[in-house]
Amino acid sequence: MPLTDLERLDPASYLELRAHMETLEHHYRDLCDIEFAIERGRLWMLQTRVGKRTAEAAFAIAAELADEGLISVDEALARVSGDGLARLMFPRFDTSAVGEPLAHGIPASPGAAVGAVVFDSAEAVRRAAAGEKVVLVRQETTPDDLPGMVAAEAVLTSRGGKTSHAAVVARGMGKVCVCGAEQITVDPRERRFTVGGTTVREGEVVSVDGSAGTVYLGAAPLVDSAVMRYLETGAHGERSAPLVDAVARALRRADDVRRLEVRANADTPEDAARARRFGAQGVGLCRTEHMFLGERRKLVEEMILARDDIERARALEALLPLQRQDFIGILEAMDGLPVTIRLLDPPLHEFLPDRTELAVRVATASARGELPEPHDVELLDAVNRMHEENPMLGLRGVRLGLVVPGLVAMQVRAVAEAVVERVRAGGDPQAEIMVPLVDTVEELRLAREEVDAVLAEVGKATGVPVRCAVGTMIELPRAALTAGRIAEEAEFFSFGTNDLTQTVWGFSRDDVEAAFFSAYLDKGIFATSPFETIDRDGVGRLVEIAVAEGRAARPDLKIGVCGEHGGDPESVHFFHAAGLDYVSCSPFRVPVARLEAGRAALEGAGDSDSR
Amino acid sequence: MPLTDLERLDPASYLELRAHMETLEHHYRDLCDIEFAIERGRLWMLQTRVGKRTAEAAFAIAAELADEGLISVDEALARVSGDGLARLMFPRFDTSAVGEPLAHGIPASPGAAVGAVVFDSAEAVRRAAAGEKVVLVRQETTPDDLPGMVAAEAVLTSRGGKTSHAAVVARGMGKVCVCGAEQITVDPRERRFTVGGTTVREGEVVSVDGSAGTVYLGAAPLVDSAVMRYLETGAHGERSAPLVDAVARALRRADDVRRLEVRANADTPEDAARARRFGAQGVGLCRTEHMFLGERRKLVEEMILARDDIERARALEALLPLQRQDFIGILEAMDGLPVTIRLLDPPLHEFLPDRTELAVRVATASARGELPEPHDVELLDAVNRMHEENPMLGLRGVRLGLVVPGLVAMQVRAVAEAVVERVRAGGDPQAEIMVPLVDTVEELRLAREEVDAVLAEVGKATGVPVRCAVGTMIELPRAALTAGRIAEEAEFFSFGTNDLTQTVWGFSRDDVEAAFFSAYLDKGIFATSPFETIDRDGVGRLVEIAVAEGRAARPDLKIGVCGEHGGDPESVHFFHAAGLDYVSCSPFRVPVARLEAGRAALEGAGDSDSR
Repeated sequence: MPLTDLERLDPASYLELRAHMETLEHHYRDLCDIEFAIERGRLWMLQTRVGKRTAEAAFAIAAELADEGLISVDEALARVSGDGLARLMFPRFDTSAVGEPLAHGIPASPGAAVGAVVFDSAEAVRRAAAGEKVVLVRQETTPDDLPGMVAAEAVLTSRGGKTSHAAVVARGMGKVCVCGAEQITVDPRERRFTVGGTTVREGEVVSVDGSAGTVYLGAAPLVDSAVMRYLETGAHGERSAPLVDAVARALRRADDVRRLEVRANADTPEDAARARRFGAQGVGLCRTEHMFLGERRKLVEEMILARDDIERARALEALLPLQRQDFIGILEAMDGLPVTIRLLDPPLHEFLPDRTELAVRVATASARGELPEPHDVELLDAVNRMHEENPMLGLRGVRLGLVVPGLVAMQVRAVAEAVVERVRAGGDPQAEIMVPLVDTVEELRLAREEVDAVLAEVGKATGVPVRCAVGTMIELPRAALTAGRIAEEAEFFSFGTNDLTQTVWGFSRDDVEAAFFSAYLDKGIFATSPFETIDRDGVGRLVEIAVAEGRAARPDLKIGVCGEHGGDPESVHFFHAAGLDYVSCSPFRVPVARLEAGRAALEGAGDSDSR
Repeated sequence: MPLTDLERLDPASYLELRAHMETLEHHYRDLCDIEFAIERGRLWMLQTRVGKRTAEAAFAIAAELADEGLISVDEALARVSGDGLARLMFPRFDTSAVGEPLAHGIPASPGAAVGAVVFDSAEAVRRAAAGEKVVLVRQETTPDDLPGMVAAEAVLTSRGGKTSHAAVVARGMGKVCVCGAEQITVDPRERRFTVGGTTVREGEVVSVDGSAGTVYLGAAPLVDSAVMRYLETGAHGERSAPLVDAVARALRRADDVRRLEVRANADTPEDAARARRFGAQGVGLCRTEHMFLGERRKLVEEMILARDDIERARALEALLPLQRQDFIGILEAMDGLPVTIRLLDPPLHEFLPDRTELAVRVATASARGELPEPHDVELLDAVNRMHEENPMLGLRGVRLGLVVPGLVAMQVRAVAEAVVERVRAGGDPQAEIMVPLVDTVEELRLAREEVDAVLAEVGKATGVPVRCAVGTMIELPRAALTAGRIAEEAEFFSFGTNDLTQTVWGFSRDDVEAAFFSAYLDKGIFATSPFETIDRDGVGRLVEIAVAEGRAARPDLKIGVCGEHGGDPESVHFFHAAGLDYVSCSPFRVPVARLEAGRAALEGAGDSDSR
């Protein structure tokens, strides 16, 4: 019954209730849920609490309360959250077009996806390979379902909560997931699920909303996010103007109060430009290995297979103009802002074909009495030679630069020449060179010598002085533990908290997330995946040691973080408290990081938390 | 010219020189190298320094000087070294039987080996596979030579020093190596090497002494080490009695003064018994995974392939009596001394066949139009399912125990029943149960609950109370960084410094030692491999943190180390200084660790170092 009916039925109680409601709203300075009873004309206030709300409502209510002067703009900022903002940035289904949901579950991993229902991993893989979009439906998932989860657009389960295997793994992959939709009965043998009176068979299309936790029958039409459109273009739109206004105001206030800069991880001019529109103040991580893929892989292969320095030099020379062009585009998109370019990081054999596949190809050709492709034989030989049991713990990062002649020089030359070209075009390029996977100051010193020599050489040859800050990733425990020494040679530190988490815990994300994280969350071994939210006691302690000892050795040391944690709300609060200068995250997380960096700056006042 | 000739030629100078020599020997209280000249009857003392000496001489001279009262027994101990003792424990060639060496080089990795000369890796592998013993001879080795080095008995190079690839990798493998034998000219195309006027062709036999750095033509007869015989049997022998006496006295004194206990890593009753003869005060690491190999691999395979809990339980049940029997033997050999049994550590797929080999076998059968073995297909499926990109960072250690039902219970039951059987036989079994790869106190708490329940159950069922200390490895940075919490559940810590080095540095020994350690040593990035000698700044700092915070939480916490560092002289000194209770090392290193633990205890006096 609406409250207005009460006014008619019992005007006295109605007025009394309105007075209490005003008192409560002023007391809590927030939207309240209230329970009351009226017994023989007497009003009993039973209980009250600050009301739960959707992300939309949180932004709108905060803006409204601030407008009414009930809370300050800082309090308004404290009452919204980055997680909420992130949810508002996904496209949603146009629910007016699809009617009621078929089922409700837990919104485990946000986003909206449409696809044909399948009931096992193999079928998901088969259909996806044929170009079909599929939704994997299981009672619950296990590590055996991993290939199917990779192949599917969305995952839907009838059992399990936020820490279930499906939820944890889908979130790790950024894949849409609704879990624990308990009204659904999954029957994999009959390849169907039932919910209420409806039966959905393999191949039928459903729409899954991982932000709302809803499932619709058929292909629901998607509606772009108004918030996303605003962030992309600055346009407020019509229908969603109040929400967009509220978001804009929260972000503006956050930008005013935050101390942390926010940069983005971007490897292409397009990503850099988008990040800038989203408010990024530079590129904190430009991964050059992504520029070695696609058609260029062939050149990288030639570099790896080179039999001598001359062959290798030729391959590197062919890569140089391509790398230079990449950097020019990114420096242009980020003109006037820092762009931190990381030298090649992953093991070289990542650019070669899979060992087992190659071996099978060569062996089956022989078994059929054919001659295997000579190129396959040569490649297999190289792959066997370079095979590592644990590539994550092998020849990569600065180690590669120190043992493969010419690699660092080529990359640095590409950066330096890009800087020169941008300067000549009237730009203001701010390239920084970052050395990955450093363990000791000696590694950095040796790499730096080569970097500085090439920068000087290009400057001399072109007549344009090239000045790039040179710094290092802090992504190995030893680097953190000897940060005071490393700071002697580093103008900046950037924490690679993903790799640091892997080595501090001794587990690699790809191998363990699907294998046992769900079990670990269920058993309470950790409350959130340390790859999602930074582990303060372990990884965080090393961050604090490195910040303190790095700054003691070099007071003007610039310190940031460039892992995924840079866009995680709770982690952003930690990085603020740890005294970092900036966080860098994926372009889409930039607004989230801006908001949370603002909230973190207010945290001293005690009225904000990251959730 | 012998000194006695001088007495005849110039008696005055002779007497004067003898007087100076006495003065110097008393001053330095050591053997001295002296340079002098006599010019027209006038004696000039040019320079003097403490003389270099072989390991034999070091022990003999120290004992002699102590006998003469020139130095104390503690000073005698300070003047010998574990490295020297280790050299004395290898068999040597009977040089009286072979004459002059063919060549001299740097003694890069100790031991004596005989084999046919080969000049490339492929030939080494081919001949070794056919059962022939080979010596790989190269100008210098590269990572491409690795398979040949694995196949060879010894490696001989004509170039490079102690940090050359050959030296570093051979030492890591415990393989005999002489490097930098510069008189040798290696001609791999002609498959021969020449030295002086001698030419040695492929297939000819040479003898390589990696302790002395010498190479002999032909098969030199081996002589057992008298020191080893003494350590093994307590017998002093005849010919080498003074040397053996000197070693025995140094060890006795070291045992008197050392604070560190010395245990051994042993997985069999034979190793445990030998370790005890060598003076081990217990087993610090009994690796149960070694008990899962050989014929038992089949049972482990069944456990892994089990389709349900019942099949798995059946496989575990078959393993139980075998494990129990292993433990009974080891507890008997170490009766009255602690035996630390580590629960299963490595990833399960280590017990399955190689993925690439299996895939090739299945694919070639199909290519030939045959049906692949159904068992191969089943295995390949399991191997693919369990494949990890980085098995070192995957599902292993306590993680395995927490997700594979029944595994921990089976192992603990085997331990408990072995204890009961030993008690009933009148023994004094001191089993300790060690949980590997712990990251958080919660993991240890959960594992402990299962351990304690099984111990109680066996105690109740047999009427023999089973009391085992339960502790954990500290082998991941996070464990060290949260040691204060972990100590709440751990009665002892044992540092796994090999794994800790791998995660602190972010490199795995198998992958990097051959790939770039030689380059790193040459460039001065580190002075010794951190896998040989503990890295004090990185790994050592974590050890110190964990000792301090672990003891603060639990003052009676017992702390040891059970990696290879436990037998490395310099590392033993570090562990002494860090306040550990014991080191545990391979049985053959036990005398070395005893000696160096004694020297470390004397170090406060300032007259000892570990080299």
